[in-house]
Amino acid sequence: MSGASTAPRRGPGRPSDGSDRRAVILAVARDQFAAKGYAGASLRGIAREAGVDPALVHHYFGGKDQLFVAAVELPFNPADRLPELLAGGPAELPERLVRIFLGMWSDPSFRTPMIGLVRSAFSSEEGSRMLREFLSGTLLARVGAALGPLPPERIQGAVAQLVGVVILKHVIRLEPLASTPDEDLVQLLAPTVRRYLTEG
Amino acid sequence: MSGASTAPRRGPGRPSDGSDRRAVILAVARDQFAAKGYAGASLRGIAREAGVDPALVHHYFGGKDQLFVAAVELPFNPADRLPELLAGGPAELPERLVRIFLGMWSDPSFRTPMIGLVRSAFSSEEGSRMLREFLSGTLLARVGAALGPLPPERIQGAVAQLVGVVILKHVIRLEPLASTPDEDLVQLLAPTVRRYLTEG
Repeated sequence: MSGASTAPRRGPGRPSDGSDRRAVILAVARDQFAAKGYAGASLRGIAREAGVDPALVHHYFGGKDQLFVAAVELPFNPADRLPELLAGGPAELPERLVRIFLGMWSDPSFRTPMIGLVRSAFSSEEGSRMLREFLSGTLLARVGAALGPLPPERIQGAVAQLVGVVILKHVIRLEPLASTPDEDLVQLLAPTVRRYLTEG
Repeated sequence: MSGASTAPRRGPGRPSDGSDRRAVILAVARDQFAAKGYAGASLRGIAREAGVDPALVHHYFGGKDQLFVAAVELPFNPADRLPELLAGGPAELPERLVRIFLGMWSDPSFRTPMIGLVRSAFSSEEGSRMLREFLSGTLLARVGAALGPLPPERIQGAVAQLVGVVILKHVIRLEPLASTPDEDLVQLLAPTVRRYLTEG
């Protein structure tokens, strides 16, 4: 009668079509990233635990960073915004970095899982390691490579400025920061980012 | 026989000497700050709930900010470091601010309860409100008054820089930031703080 009634019945937990197998891979990935950290978990180990071929994990998710992004339910990989950051040349890059970062955090579909990740870093060593290894192993490594030769502590100084602002704005909701329009915050913060990224 | 055996016996929960009454006040204060926020809780209400005279709360703790500091088990009131911050004139104030802030966070007796406060801000609206109201109602108000006329979002930009650094350093423990000596971080961060506190 309906399309659903013609689908074959399946036992619970038995990965038998694409959507089932994708869900099983994500559930296993969440467990393994939490237990082993980002660096310690492997696509091969996740595939084995999920009872699927590693090629299928690649097929669904591409690579470990995209699998992590899907497992923690981020709506996109923050690293996918890199081309936008780098487009338009270096002169206005600090403004673009602040604007893109604040824009991502103003979107609840990004902010909610990110706040969950940071909360887990406050709650357990496993949560701290998972976030640390994801940031250093993928996101900051790619940002650093894109920005050219810079001492990593200068990049991290800029990241700290941005992380601190979104925590004051979206978690502690300190006024007047919480009500300041993003574009005003770009003007406030971009000179700081510029100093870290351009001065020796 | 021993000193303890000569002490009069007391029923549980009955405030009958200074140490008992102090503990009861602190327990009530923790509940009321969590339930009503920093601004909503009052010394009078806490005294009433603890079954003591408000003058006794003043006697033990001085004021609401010190009662809050004791209730959340901070080893000292961060505002007590203000004289040290202001001593020595404005020229090196940014360096002193970064040095004092990082030094407090390097002390586990300060860091542990502070991390608990920030974690509670990530976990519930009540925790967020409690920390927000404490920061804006006491600490930042006093820092702002001490620094003279400055747009509050500039002070909060500097605070965001410092908050972001201690979260990357002590919670996410991102390298190389986590291993960078505090005095190197002072050199990295003080120019940022100086810009917020001195430029228009």
